[in-house]
Amino acid sequence: MDFKVGVFDSGIGGLSVVREIKRLMPGQPLIYFGDTARTPYGPKSLEILRRYALQDAKFLIQQGASLVVIACHSAASAATGLLESELAVPVFEVVTPSVAQAITLTRNFRIGVIGTRATISSRIYDRLIPERLKNVRVFGRACPLLVPLVEEGWINNRETRMIVKRYLRPLREKQIDTLVLGCTHYPLLKRVIMEKAGKRVKIVDPSEEVARAVHGFLKGKGLLAEGSGDNDRFFVSDLTSNTQTIVERFMGKGIKLEKAVFS
Amino acid sequence: MDFKVGVFDSGIGGLSVVREIKRLMPGQPLIYFGDTARTPYGPKSLEILRRYALQDAKFLIQQGASLVVIACHSAASAATGLLESELAVPVFEVVTPSVAQAITLTRNFRIGVIGTRATISSRIYDRLIPERLKNVRVFGRACPLLVPLVEEGWINNRETRMIVKRYLRPLREKQIDTLVLGCTHYPLLKRVIMEKAGKRVKIVDPSEEVARAVHGFLKGKGLLAEGSGDNDRFFVSDLTSNTQTIVERFMGKGIKLEKAVFS
Repeated sequence: MDFKVGVFDSGIGGLSVVREIKRLMPGQPLIYFGDTARTPYGPKSLEILRRYALQDAKFLIQQGASLVVIACHSAASAATGLLESELAVPVFEVVTPSVAQAITLTRNFRIGVIGTRATISSRIYDRLIPERLKNVRVFGRACPLLVPLVEEGWINNRETRMIVKRYLRPLREKQIDTLVLGCTHYPLLKRVIMEKAGKRVKIVDPSEEVARAVHGFLKGKGLLAEGSGDNDRFFVSDLTSNTQTIVERFMGKGIKLEKAVFS
Repeated sequence: MDFKVGVFDSGIGGLSVVREIKRLMPGQPLIYFGDTARTPYGPKSLEILRRYALQDAKFLIQQGASLVVIACHSAASAATGLLESELAVPVFEVVTPSVAQAITLTRNFRIGVIGTRATISSRIYDRLIPERLKNVRVFGRACPLLVPLVEEGWINNRETRMIVKRYLRPLREKQIDTLVLGCTHYPLLKRVIMEKAGKRVKIVDPSEEVARAVHGFLKGKGLLAEGSGDNDRFFVSDLTSNTQTIVERFMGKGIKLEKAVFS
């Protein structure tokens, strides 16, 4: 049986990871869980994040996943160690490969990170990047309005551009040359973010990085599947008509959402 | 023993209701529960909202509340009937008294309602107002960015003013003369909303209306308390440093939050 990749997120933002996985490995069977009943994870405490992340990952494994990808930065910041020790399957997450990529790209050793309040206050990038690169400086900035702007579909309007500019101003002043998009929703704002960050700033998109990491792992183990990829399943813990609209914003039409039976 | 009022909300927005209750009845003992672990309720389905609202109300009753106020519009829209049939205590909520006030205020029979996506798509005001006033027209507008703007503390900055203006434009075009602030966070934006709605538009603030309704009920039953009001308790299901910051935005300093033990 083909090796099934499980991806979970606090909501549907993790579909940006799915999109990259399907681009690199279109035939790999995939199962997605978005915890839309308890979204967002961004403002929640470590304790709650750990409990939810473990439940989410266990649901994916029950549904047949042989590998778990934590697509949510808040959950990855809070619960990666816990999941690695509690689960019998390999765990990938969006932070570690993005750290590696940021280190590769920076020339002036000044790296910016934007994300939700939980991700930024976890200081995970501030801890991990300097462990691997000496004399680097990491500047974090919480941008709590960007997720609701994406979910409202305000991808490139005037208010969004002003808000992105305001959020990025302190990072520009720090003269960063590399910027990590530390939240799964942000790739949808990539164009505006690139513009407001400044032309010379290189962007790290964790969705791309984690997909590459999973691809490298599966290829190395000879586990890449050749199937049609038509049996992917997409679960959410709560389903409203707006969920479907937002999913289309990430993936285009044709994704069938299923309600997860999940206590 | 004094008659204790319980108030619950999806998060801390319900403190705008607490503020009005304490203004009218400073001595009435009060207990608050904010479901910060599962906030926001706005985007959630009816089924989930009903389950959560019943749990929240039962927690308040376990803690000694003799009356329950649903401060959350999304929960009130979804679960008032359920709570009235399941609970043995009186249930008040933010919608019914606001409907009455909107009907009293309108002169041209064109009433606007702003709220979260859940409140607006529940069409609760569209159903209740015409039941009580013939030939009235109700215009709803979901404003999902206003809650995160308040929580970010962007109460009166340029982006907020532009966004409020954009949200209210279709209601202005409908020439409403009365506007219901259908979400507990919106009173904090009252000044901007009044400005952008137009000078002649009268504002209905459900926090004030429900506090008045509770006051009338307690007074009528001779249950108004004369105590010091110093024993009020404020529970949340998840507690982060940012929660405390946002609470101060609503209530000023001096509120001690307790973590609810809540399954």
